[in-house]
Amino acid sequence: MRWWGWGDPAQEPVLPPHALEFLRSTVGVAEQPRPPVALENVTLPASALDEDALARLRAIAGEDGVRADHDARVLHAAGKGYPDLVRMRAGEPGEAPDAIVYPRTREQLVALLALCAEDSVAVVPFGGGTSVVGGVAPLRGEHRAAIALDTAQIDGVRALDRESATVTVGAGIRGPALERELAAHGFTLGHYPQSYEYVSLGGCAATRSAGQASTGYGAIEKMVLGLRVCAPAGEIELPPIPATAAGPGLRQLLVGSEGTLGVIEQLHLRVREAPRARVYLGVFFERFPAGVEALRACAREHVLPDVARLSDEHETSMSLALAGTGGLKARIGRTYLGLRGYAEGCLAIFGFEGGNEDVDYRRGRALALAHGCGGISVGRSPGEAWRHGRFAAPYLRDDLLTHGVMVETLETATQWSNLLDLHTRVGDAIGAALAGYDTPAYVMCHVSHVYETGASLYFTFIARQSTDDPIAQWRDVKAAACDAIVEGGGTITHHHAVGRDHAPWMAREVGASALAALSAAKAELDPHGIMNPGKLALAAAAIRRSA
Amino acid sequence: MRWWGWGDPAQEPVLPPHALEFLRSTVGVAEQPRPPVALENVTLPASALDEDALARLRAIAGEDGVRADHDARVLHAAGKGYPDLVRMRAGEPGEAPDAIVYPRTREQLVALLALCAEDSVAVVPFGGGTSVVGGVAPLRGEHRAAIALDTAQIDGVRALDRESATVTVGAGIRGPALERELAAHGFTLGHYPQSYEYVSLGGCAATRSAGQASTGYGAIEKMVLGLRVCAPAGEIELPPIPATAAGPGLRQLLVGSEGTLGVIEQLHLRVREAPRARVYLGVFFERFPAGVEALRACAREHVLPDVARLSDEHETSMSLALAGTGGLKARIGRTYLGLRGYAEGCLAIFGFEGGNEDVDYRRGRALALAHGCGGISVGRSPGEAWRHGRFAAPYLRDDLLTHGVMVETLETATQWSNLLDLHTRVGDAIGAALAGYDTPAYVMCHVSHVYETGASLYFTFIARQSTDDPIAQWRDVKAAACDAIVEGGGTITHHHAVGRDHAPWMAREVGASALAALSAAKAELDPHGIMNPGKLALAAAAIRRSA
Repeated sequence: MRWWGWGDPAQEPVLPPHALEFLRSTVGVAEQPRPPVALENVTLPASALDEDALARLRAIAGEDGVRADHDARVLHAAGKGYPDLVRMRAGEPGEAPDAIVYPRTREQLVALLALCAEDSVAVVPFGGGTSVVGGVAPLRGEHRAAIALDTAQIDGVRALDRESATVTVGAGIRGPALERELAAHGFTLGHYPQSYEYVSLGGCAATRSAGQASTGYGAIEKMVLGLRVCAPAGEIELPPIPATAAGPGLRQLLVGSEGTLGVIEQLHLRVREAPRARVYLGVFFERFPAGVEALRACAREHVLPDVARLSDEHETSMSLALAGTGGLKARIGRTYLGLRGYAEGCLAIFGFEGGNEDVDYRRGRALALAHGCGGISVGRSPGEAWRHGRFAAPYLRDDLLTHGVMVETLETATQWSNLLDLHTRVGDAIGAALAGYDTPAYVMCHVSHVYETGASLYFTFIARQSTDDPIAQWRDVKAAACDAIVEGGGTITHHHAVGRDHAPWMAREVGASALAALSAAKAELDPHGIMNPGKLALAAAAIRRSA
Repeated sequence: MRWWGWGDPAQEPVLPPHALEFLRSTVGVAEQPRPPVALENVTLPASALDEDALARLRAIAGEDGVRADHDARVLHAAGKGYPDLVRMRAGEPGEAPDAIVYPRTREQLVALLALCAEDSVAVVPFGGGTSVVGGVAPLRGEHRAAIALDTAQIDGVRALDRESATVTVGAGIRGPALERELAAHGFTLGHYPQSYEYVSLGGCAATRSAGQASTGYGAIEKMVLGLRVCAPAGEIELPPIPATAAGPGLRQLLVGSEGTLGVIEQLHLRVREAPRARVYLGVFFERFPAGVEALRACAREHVLPDVARLSDEHETSMSLALAGTGGLKARIGRTYLGLRGYAEGCLAIFGFEGGNEDVDYRRGRALALAHGCGGISVGRSPGEAWRHGRFAAPYLRDDLLTHGVMVETLETATQWSNLLDLHTRVGDAIGAALAGYDTPAYVMCHVSHVYETGASLYFTFIARQSTDDPIAQWRDVKAAACDAIVEGGGTITHHHAVGRDHAPWMAREVGASALAALSAAKAELDPHGIMNPGKLALAAAAIRRSA
């Protein structure tokens, strides 16, 4: 993983020349490219752990299981949010773990938590490191140091129950490694967040992740049938039963706990048979509300596509512009816009996966419902184009940053009856906040996950990066958007989680009593408060309670 | 509601003469009927609340809002479990609430909780009072008295969001009242536990209830989008968003909390359009494993019936015997058993509800999969017969008790790969425990709810009631069954909840760390421990912690 951005370090720039021209004409680009500094020029604070402390960690995790060198600390200094990348590219992360520890066994993990509780060392669980909300920020809280607890070695498929369609994994296993193993047995998990190529499944569970196909496969919370969490005060182990009424939902208390209660060490996950049929289609709607209505109709009739995405007019225009004059744009121009004379439009991707009969039935009904809302199928090529590029957007973000273009995403979910209002409200808030920075703003959005009672909204905005203080610019826009979301009746996050960045808004969303109850549960499982301090709104509540 | 049994006091006995003969020949019946004592002969402990205490309650809930008379106390003295009925019919409940309070508003509810915390009075939330696991047992814990907090007046539909398909209700609303209101607007909740005619929706949410159609509609946990809980230390209010990644699953922490954290005052529930098509079919399998395989195949292909029940050989025989020589038995004899010459068989009910296309598609695929497992459709009459009698079983239980026949049910869920083993193990344990009481035992079971990765098992057993100590007989058999469930890898309850009866096994299932975390959350929301003491495994943990 690039320490200053996304993905494969060997990846070439993905921004085509015509797209750069489009950006130049819409929001403006830097006169000179601004590449990241060299790795050796990244400035880190000195490690707070001396050789004795490192030796104690090595006594548990082995010589190879502990690192405190420059490169490892840089790679674990931040996640992949916009402010993370801005700071890393400038060589000024401002914070870094004092060491990185790679336990290989549950016993090592348990021993490490005990040692850290005794030594007053905060523990930041680190899976793929792909958080975009500061979830892996190496915060110490009130402790003398912080380690990143990298779960990469707690991996592997431990059991596959073919009859029950469940797999048991070490929680550090990466998405592609799990899918490869499952594919060899004819199964799939079906969890494809944009970060799929790098995520750990434990990280997905800890952050209540949703994948691009979660409309069909369900978000990770639907897949976690059981799990084992190692907390400083003990372990919680819940078996992979399909359903239970044995009290409050403990599995759902642990899913989304973001490393604040303990480390997810093992997961029992529901899998499905690998799809025999896979059809991804583009559907064009004249206006966003018509597309929303089509998705709502599909939800009502239980014929939703597994991937159900609907771009608004702005995002559709941007997609066509980035695609250039060939391919998608030409095809859609010929088959739809040209014929209909629509000035703009909204492109939806309907992706169906499953058995042949299932895909045939749902595709037929979903397209019929879409047609009833004025939608026109524009065939497989837009769907296949989307599939082909589904994990590429983070690379594009790196290229935009190189050209001085700010790009950030944020997301929410709400009821159908509130969706269009929230879409307008959040878009307006982002635009107004960026206007204060004297930059044009390009704000776009898509519906990314669909439920019977509502849907999620995923916003992307592009602007000229402030050269004075890009972090302050980001903070202002982010706060305006988050305020608009919570005041507008949306949830502060549908699938990016809370981390550091969303904690104040989570507190507003769930209220003081709920936070107090969660904080009490945390204090029981993590009595020294070493687990991922400063994340969720729990730490803040705990600090208030102890003050 | 009958104070000594189930349902409408005007209900005539439902046990036909041929069924009584069948019982006489299988397990034996009492020589003389044993009717319940008269209401005025029920012995209650004196109320621990004096006139001053009652006056303080009346100052909040009004004159009509507080009762401490004999009849009201009897009606709130117990739920509807087997030991409850045995004790009530004998006129010896052994315990009763010291008063019953009926708040009409949220403000009254909050004030009552504050008063009870101050006066050291335990609060037992009481919805429909249909718990079969001691969930409404009027236990005081360490307090000087206990009130039943009857939610019947906190009812009504507060809002209907047609576009989002969500309804907001006062949590005391009863199942039929809600369905009537929804039907007038073309919607249904689709939640039909066997206790449907009496349940409150708040009670359903508090006990993580599943209905007979939950394979299709989902259990109550899938329907609760948001809720408001009034706890002694404050309120938790969560809006009806379709999904969120804002930390641990707070909704699922409150669903299943069984009144131990607070009182559910309001619910936002997902509803669906009233089904346009409704098809209930009988399907016959030669053996139980073949039926299980058919349900598993339907789950894999996502074509499950909304009602998916599969009786084992014993339950099928009993159903046919109880149905007598007409109707079901004759039809199945002609169309299946007679033609095939099968000595026994297993009857499944496949019930489909929804839009016309949806029902057609699923019915076609599900029957094709069933046929592939040797299943034979025996038409609509068994399905319609089941629908007609779907809420009648509790009346039958009353009649059996009158004839000295013990009848009890218990249930679990597990993965597919463990289902047949668990079926055998629990059935054997029940039979062995009853053998110790020198009675024949008739143990039967059906799969009642189906998931992708497993299913629930619902056991019913019939035996001759001990005349010495029927409660001890029940306790021994229940303990043997619960041990077999937990040791066999099942959950202690799929949908009956924990209450008083399952608390020790819940503790074994989830472990000490999880209980400690839940108990800590409870202590935060209910610092004086007044909320439903002795329920779940929380109270036990709290008592251990304070000891």
